[in-house]
Amino acid sequence: MKAQIITIGDEILIGQIVNTNASYIGEKLTYSQITVSKVSSVGDEEKAILDEFESALSRNDLIIVTGGLGPTHDDITRKCIAGFFNSELEMNEQVLADVKVFFEKRNRPLTKINEEQALVPKIAKPIRNFRGTAPGFWIEKDGKIFISLPGVPFEMKGMMEGYVLPKLNELNPARNVFFSIKTLLTTGIGESSLYEIIKKVDNIFDEAKIAFLPNQFGTKVRLIVSALNEQESINRLLAVEQKIRAAAGKYIYGKDEETLEEIVGNLLIERGLRLAVAESCTGGLVTNRLTNVSGSSKYLERGLVSYSNAAKVEMLHVNEDIIHEFGAVSLQVALQMAEGVKAVSGADIGISLTGIMGPTGATPDKPVGLVYIGICDDTLCTALKFNFGDDRLLNKDRASQAALEMIRRRLLGIPYDE
Amino acid sequence: MKAQIITIGDEILIGQIVNTNASYIGEKLTYSQITVSKVSSVGDEEKAILDEFESALSRNDLIIVTGGLGPTHDDITRKCIAGFFNSELEMNEQVLADVKVFFEKRNRPLTKINEEQALVPKIAKPIRNFRGTAPGFWIEKDGKIFISLPGVPFEMKGMMEGYVLPKLNELNPARNVFFSIKTLLTTGIGESSLYEIIKKVDNIFDEAKIAFLPNQFGTKVRLIVSALNEQESINRLLAVEQKIRAAAGKYIYGKDEETLEEIVGNLLIERGLRLAVAESCTGGLVTNRLTNVSGSSKYLERGLVSYSNAAKVEMLHVNEDIIHEFGAVSLQVALQMAEGVKAVSGADIGISLTGIMGPTGATPDKPVGLVYIGICDDTLCTALKFNFGDDRLLNKDRASQAALEMIRRRLLGIPYDE
Repeated sequence: MKAQIITIGDEILIGQIVNTNASYIGEKLTYSQITVSKVSSVGDEEKAILDEFESALSRNDLIIVTGGLGPTHDDITRKCIAGFFNSELEMNEQVLADVKVFFEKRNRPLTKINEEQALVPKIAKPIRNFRGTAPGFWIEKDGKIFISLPGVPFEMKGMMEGYVLPKLNELNPARNVFFSIKTLLTTGIGESSLYEIIKKVDNIFDEAKIAFLPNQFGTKVRLIVSALNEQESINRLLAVEQKIRAAAGKYIYGKDEETLEEIVGNLLIERGLRLAVAESCTGGLVTNRLTNVSGSSKYLERGLVSYSNAAKVEMLHVNEDIIHEFGAVSLQVALQMAEGVKAVSGADIGISLTGIMGPTGATPDKPVGLVYIGICDDTLCTALKFNFGDDRLLNKDRASQAALEMIRRRLLGIPYDE
Repeated sequence: MKAQIITIGDEILIGQIVNTNASYIGEKLTYSQITVSKVSSVGDEEKAILDEFESALSRNDLIIVTGGLGPTHDDITRKCIAGFFNSELEMNEQVLADVKVFFEKRNRPLTKINEEQALVPKIAKPIRNFRGTAPGFWIEKDGKIFISLPGVPFEMKGMMEGYVLPKLNELNPARNVFFSIKTLLTTGIGESSLYEIIKKVDNIFDEAKIAFLPNQFGTKVRLIVSALNEQESINRLLAVEQKIRAAAGKYIYGKDEETLEEIVGNLLIERGLRLAVAESCTGGLVTNRLTNVSGSSKYLERGLVSYSNAAKVEMLHVNEDIIHEFGAVSLQVALQMAEGVKAVSGADIGISLTGIMGPTGATPDKPVGLVYIGICDDTLCTALKFNFGDDRLLNKDRASQAALEMIRRRLLGIPYDE
């Protein structure tokens, strides 16, 4: 089954809202083994809407439309559907009763424009809306399915989950292709280097559809495999994942919706270790990410943002002479910060960051993007040098990710070689 | 000028990412008086891409395409453009030099697939990418403009702002309606209370199109006015803004893209004051936000994340008996933390936060969302109690915003009454 999602409303075109409805529906259809071929957004304009209906129906088996069903003058989807299918609007008693109940419950007066929301094109079966007033429409014609839902995400989702998805799954029982999807999260390696490693794995691109999705935190590797039955697709995905892990496992810190701060937190809990953080350039971001995880008080002892040199000396016992000799942004200071924060806090691991995030602060031998990260536990203190980019906020993200990854690799005994 | 935005990539169709690129571009084009007629997303599939190019070019004057320009096998936009315009790919020396510099700067090896990113269709003028490796393309044919940009938002935005928008504005001088747009940023007041205040301002909804856009940081009030000439639209906008400021000025901390951390930073610089932060529940977020601003080392002395009680006692000299008597989440501890961080750092202002962010940690008399924020300067120490919501990350955002707003109001002598 091939589908197109159409969202209607000027607010998407002018960028006033982000189209989260389309991504929600796209995800749900994908999980129901329905292939989304296209997503499109058009404005509140009759000709544009009718053109899009026409084009979508000629190329797909299923169309899901959201938006334009509200009571005000700019909501014209209902009228467009009636026109497109050449089907009169008629008052639907069930829908009218629902609308009345909705207003009674809220002690709000029922106006004429609200009553008109119970007008349903004859060809359509109304989809009841238990979270709002506009009903949806389910239309079947010439073996194709056309569904119209309100644009309010909360209402649309209620109708998708309560009616549309169960019914689509029922109609699509003889699914002949099953998909399994997993996203592996990597960091500490560039997209192209990762690609070079993975493409050498035997037949990997034949066995799975693989996409590389880079951002400042690393590269996500999305794997999609298909098979004729569900168990087979799960098995195949596992085989592909194992091959990729064998080739590039050390860069893979997690999967799907996991975050590196969660992964690091779980490792610290497993080992019963406590962490202390000393940040200069990242200004609290590492500590902030760690504390985004509920329960982080179990392993995070404290975080110090030693933005001034005085703070480095007083709070972390960094040697002033070392700052003068090598500069605050140096391997030596990073090491002393990590040692210092471990010592003053009594934690098992100290991590430190010092660098130049830009746009100002660079010197001829210390460019924007230069960051040193130190890590110190009971057996070893080391520090690494990184060169990130030009953008302050992205540099903070990249540095925080590198610091968390250094902790992960230290805990797992994986060398950090980039 | 009529435009279509096309985003390419399976990840949008299957709902793995939300299409923020389209909303960003839609907004920018709208500001440039270009009408966006449609937004569409297609997968990494040649026929679908070519069909969409064809349909878009037949109906619009301008096409902006994002995505599919990366170095890996699933990135096929470049090839599709070459095929669509029947134009060979050739190595572009300028782009190749840019790619080389990019890799040298990062001390990363240049691979063959990265070199191939310098292949540009003959018909296109490359758009330089200073934030990544994939160039964009600018193509003019038969009076229409076709632009292709990378899908990585940070790279795409750099090229839009640095090249595409200025050039489009240059080509589109004959505008007949002028819009002026401004967004006022408010915090410390709920959306509906703010609406009640603003709707009482004479004729305000006739003079401007006003939208209220709430999120966890406050409510943005977007004003749009139009006029037949540019100066008139600027004057009208100013008049509307002044009326709103007269009614609700104390809640307005900034405008448009400004951030509260910038505003607070500028006030601290003006007054020559230095700040120290003691965070418990926000876990470094306040300090992190302050250090997102370049030059924050001028006024941020240090930040302490005292997650454990031991850290509160040792680093901030909070009295242990007070913690035992009132609990770590209490007005008394917030006051002592603010006093303590001011004293140990020697800063002019100390700010502190202690609270319960959830989902765990609540007690019968201390629910999730309870936060105390303390502020201390040379003349006065005070603390306020807040009740935020149930969501941990939103609570961190809300608490950090309230703390920054307390600093702003203290510096400006505006009472904080909510």
